[in-house]
Amino acid sequence: MAAFVTLATNDSYARGAMVLGKSLRNHNTSKKLVALIGPQVSEPSKSVLERIFDEVKVVDVLDSGDTAHLAMMKRPDLGVTFTKLHCWTLTDYSKCVFMDADTLVLSNIDELFDREELSAAPDPGWPDCFNSGVFVFCPSMETHGKLIQYCTEHGSFDGGDQGVLNGFFDNWATADISKHLPFIYNLSSISIYTYLPAFKQYGGHAKVVHFLGKTKPWSYKFDPRSQQITGSVHDADTHSTFLVDWWILYSSAVVPMMQQQYGDQPFHSGCE
Amino acid sequence: MAAFVTLATNDSYARGAMVLGKSLRNHNTSKKLVALIGPQVSEPSKSVLERIFDEVKVVDVLDSGDTAHLAMMKRPDLGVTFTKLHCWTLTDYSKCVFMDADTLVLSNIDELFDREELSAAPDPGWPDCFNSGVFVFCPSMETHGKLIQYCTEHGSFDGGDQGVLNGFFDNWATADISKHLPFIYNLSSISIYTYLPAFKQYGGHAKVVHFLGKTKPWSYKFDPRSQQITGSVHDADTHSTFLVDWWILYSSAVVPMMQQQYGDQPFHSGCE
Ligand SMILES: O=c1ccn([C@@H]2O[C@H](COP(=O)(O)OP(=O)(O)O)[C@@H](O)[C@H]2O)c(=O)[nH]1
Ligand SMILES: O=c1ccn([C@@H]2O[C@H](COP(=O)(O)OP(=O)(O)O)[C@@H](O)[C@H]2O)c(=O)[nH]1
Ligand SMILES: [Mn+2]
Ligand SMILES: [Mn+2]
Repeated sequence: MAAFVTLATNDSYARGAMVLGKSLRNHNTSKKLVALIGPQVSEPSKSVLERIFDEVKVVDVLDSGDTAHLAMMKRPDLGVTFTKLHCWTLTDYSKCVFMDADTLVLSNIDELFDREELSAAPDPGWPDCFNSGVFVFCPSMETHGKLIQYCTEHGSFDGGDQGVLNGFFDNWATADISKHLPFIYNLSSISIYTYLPAFKQYGGHAKVVHFLGKTKPWSYKFDPRSQQITGSVHDADTHSTFLVDWWILYSSAVVPMMQQQYGDQPFHSGCE
Repeated sequence: MAAFVTLATNDSYARGAMVLGKSLRNHNTSKKLVALIGPQVSEPSKSVLERIFDEVKVVDVLDSGDTAHLAMMKRPDLGVTFTKLHCWTLTDYSKCVFMDADTLVLSNIDELFDREELSAAPDPGWPDCFNSGVFVFCPSMETHGKLIQYCTEHGSFDGGDQGVLNGFFDNWATADISKHLPFIYNLSSISIYTYLPAFKQYGGHAKVVHFLGKTKPWSYKFDPRSQQITGSVHDADTHSTFLVDWWILYSSAVVPMMQQQYGDQPFHSGCE
C-alpha cells in the first residue's frame, strides 16, 4: 500500500493540510491520504481532515514513551522535527510520499511512487541539500530508530527536519540521479523571483508548488468575489497565481466544510 | 593538454580574470591558463593578463567571418554569449574548465579534469539548471558549430550563456550524477544569505566562490590598511570574507602589475 503523508501540529497548518489533501483528490490520486496531527489540532479541524484524508493519526511524541519521547526530552527544540520523523513508523504502507502542509498539488503526481527512498528535489539556496517539503520514503521502524538516534546525537544544522534528513541521507547530492526529483515537484514559490527567466521557461510544468518561508498562504486574506489576495502583504507575492490557486481551493472546498463543523461557533476563514 | 579558460570582454572583467588566474596559480594548478579577451580590453590589461596566463587570445566574433559571425548578425543581443561559446574552439586542448571572470579559487581544483563534458554545479534559484560560471567541457569544432546553431535558432531563455547552455545540454538535471559538480565548486556568494545554516555547515569546504549578480567585487572600493571594503554598498556584502579575500589578492598581487604596465598613465585601482 502507498500513501501521501502530511503533518499539521496546529490549526493553521491543518488548513494547509486540508488544501493539500483536496488538491491531491482533485487530481485523482489512486493513493491513500494520511495526515499526522498534533494534539493541539482542534476537534472541528480534525473532523474536516477526516473527511478529506483516509487516515488521520494523532502523534504526540511526548506521550509516546519510546525512543522519540526520550530524544525529545533531550532536544525539546526539535519537537516538530521529531513529529515529522514519525512518518517512518507508518509501516502499514510500504512506500510513502511526504508533503509539507504548505504545498499544493497542480497535477496528478502518483508517478512519484516509482522512486526509491530517499528521493527529493534540490533546495534552492543550497542546491546540494534536498528540500524536505516533498520526499519519497519507505516506512520502517529500523530507519525511524536510526533517524531519532541521529537527530539526538547530531541535532539539526538548520534547527529543523531538513537539516536532520540531509545529515542522515548525506549522499543524496552525489550518489544517484534517480533520487533527484525534478524541481517542478517541489517548486519553491520564491524561485519565481530569484530566477524569473527560468520560471518562465520551466514553471508552466510545475506539478507541486511549495510556499516555503515565513509567510504562508493562510497568513494572507482573500476576497472571493474579486478573487484577489488582500491584507498588508508584499505586493509581489499577491500577484502569484499559485497563491490565488491555493485560496480558490481553500475558499471553495475547505471553508464550507469548516463552517459545517464549527456550526454556531465563530470561525475565521480569512475570506472577506 | 588541459586548461582553465576564462573570458573578459572589457577592462573591468579583465581585473576579475587576473585575480582568478592568480588564485589558480597560488593553489599550484598543473594545468594551462587561457584567457579569451575582447578587442576592447586595453593594452596594459592585456599585458598583465599575458604575465598571469599561458595564453591570451583575442576573440572578435564580428571579425571572424565564420558561423559565429553570421549568427551574431542575427542576434546582436547575444554578443558576449557568442564570445563565451568560442571556448569550444580551443581544440589545442582536449579538456577544459571554463570559469567566469567573477570567480575566485580557494584551493587546488585540478580534480575537476576527471569529469566529463558537460559537468557543472546546480544554480541556486532554479537548481535543475546548472550555473554556467564553472563548467567542464571538451573543445570541438563540431560542438561549437552545433552550439552556435542552437543559439541562433532557439536564442537564450535568460538572454545569456546560461540559458543557451542549459537548453543545449538539456538532460543535465536527470541523466548523470557525476556531471553534477558539488556546489562548493561554484558557491554563489548570495547563498550565504539565502540559507545561512547550510553555509555554516558546508561553506567551510568552499573551493570556488562565484560573485554572481549585478555587483561584482570590482564594483566596490577597498582600504588595504584596514583591509575593509568601503564605498556605498550594502552592509551585509561588505562583511563577506570572500569579498575581502578577492580584494586582498587583487591589491597585493594584481595592482602592482597594473601599476607597472600603466607607468605614468593614471590608473584607478579601487584601493583607497
Ligand atoms: O508549527 C509547525 C511547523 C511545521 N509543521 C509541519 O512541518 C512542515 C515544515 O514546516 P514549514 O513548511 O513551515 O517549513 P518551510 O517549508 O517554510 O521551511 C510544515 O509544512 C508542516 O507540515 C507543523 O505542522 N507545525
Ligand atoms: O560584459 C561582460 C559580461 C560578461 N563577461 C564574461 O561572462 C561571464 C558571465 O557574466 P557575469 O559573471 O557578469 O554573469 P553572472 O555570473 O553574474 O550571471 C563573466 O564572468 C565574464 O567572464 C564579460 O567578459 N563581459
Ligand atoms: Mn514547507
Ligand atoms: Mn559570473
